[in-house]
Amino acid sequence: MQFAGNKDLEERFIRRERVFDGYILHIDHAEVTLPNGQKAMREIANHIGASAVLPVDDNGMVTLVRQYRAPVEKVLLEIPAGKLDAPGEDRLAAAQRELQEETGLTAQNWIHLTDIATTPGFSSEIISLYLARQLSKGETHPDEDEFLSIVTLPFADAVSMALSGEITDAKTICALLMAGQYVNGGKHESI
Amino acid sequence: MQFAGNKDLEERFIRRERVFDGYILHIDHAEVTLPNGQKAMREIANHIGASAVLPVDDNGMVTLVRQYRAPVEKVLLEIPAGKLDAPGEDRLAAAQRELQEETGLTAQNWIHLTDIATTPGFSSEIISLYLARQLSKGETHPDEDEFLSIVTLPFADAVSMALSGEITDAKTICALLMAGQYVNGGKHESI
Repeated sequence: MQFAGNKDLEERFIRRERVFDGYILHIDHAEVTLPNGQKAMREIANHIGASAVLPVDDNGMVTLVRQYRAPVEKVLLEIPAGKLDAPGEDRLAAAQRELQEETGLTAQNWIHLTDIATTPGFSSEIISLYLARQLSKGETHPDEDEFLSIVTLPFADAVSMALSGEITDAKTICALLMAGQYVNGGKHESI
Repeated sequence: MQFAGNKDLEERFIRRERVFDGYILHIDHAEVTLPNGQKAMREIANHIGASAVLPVDDNGMVTLVRQYRAPVEKVLLEIPAGKLDAPGEDRLAAAQRELQEETGLTAQNWIHLTDIATTPGFSSEIISLYLARQLSKGETHPDEDEFLSIVTLPFADAVSMALSGEITDAKTICALLMAGQYVNGGKHESI
């Protein structure tokens, strides 16, 4: 689908100031020029980005992780995922590392599902989503302060949990619902 | 699906301190006790939450908005959405307001698709996703500093754009792929 140019929508940065430096988040306040020439302030949480991976084995079983998430004060069921180690780190390599660390799995077949902007209204975070197949089991190596519980269930059951609202993590919903074209259909586009 | 208790995964807050107060984001540093008794720091971006809505008319046409997003420095194609006006605001009312403000549409039929945790690793934001049908047209009332371009396209084309990676906004991908069970299938669960 083609759209007319973006000139009527784009904002131009006039100045941008770091107002908070945290462990994960680095917040800027930016003054922008709006398309009508007026000015506005934008608050931007700079985030290094992340990779996440849906592993599906030859029997159609997916491996997910249960993990306590302090910001929402709940244990969530999610696909294995993790932040990039450094800006510009290869996102497939990051996905492979996180899959191995959190679940012990390695995969012969990798498909790039998409890159999602998780919260483009306030953060720069982009998560690259992968489907991993032809899996082999190994040892897990979770981060020191990371407590995970591994859950294995049929792909169709995981999709049902996304559709019913039992799975609430956005990247996990995106990955499960995008993977159907490969897992159920015959689409093949390995990297 | 039933899981064993969460006691082996939960973290307990020991202390929590506000370290940054922004326009949208309010950042806390929290010290937590891990399941093994050790301590760790968590950075939490408190966010008021939001509602978003996928409008689909009687001819199967969806209305999306193109909008410049400063954090990712791109114009994105998204479902109409907006932050809650106040903590605890009714999320359906917020979805109805945002739909009307951004697209001029009102809807007779509302279906709650799900609530997504957009970034549970670092923010508390929960977005409630709705499907709106039986639409009527009216006037738009975008916020003063909000420049939007309205796009109308067939539901199937929007789903294809999500699956192909042309649509990258996570809430929009979730809403489009979750709405299929209602738009294509016969599922009816209006509020």
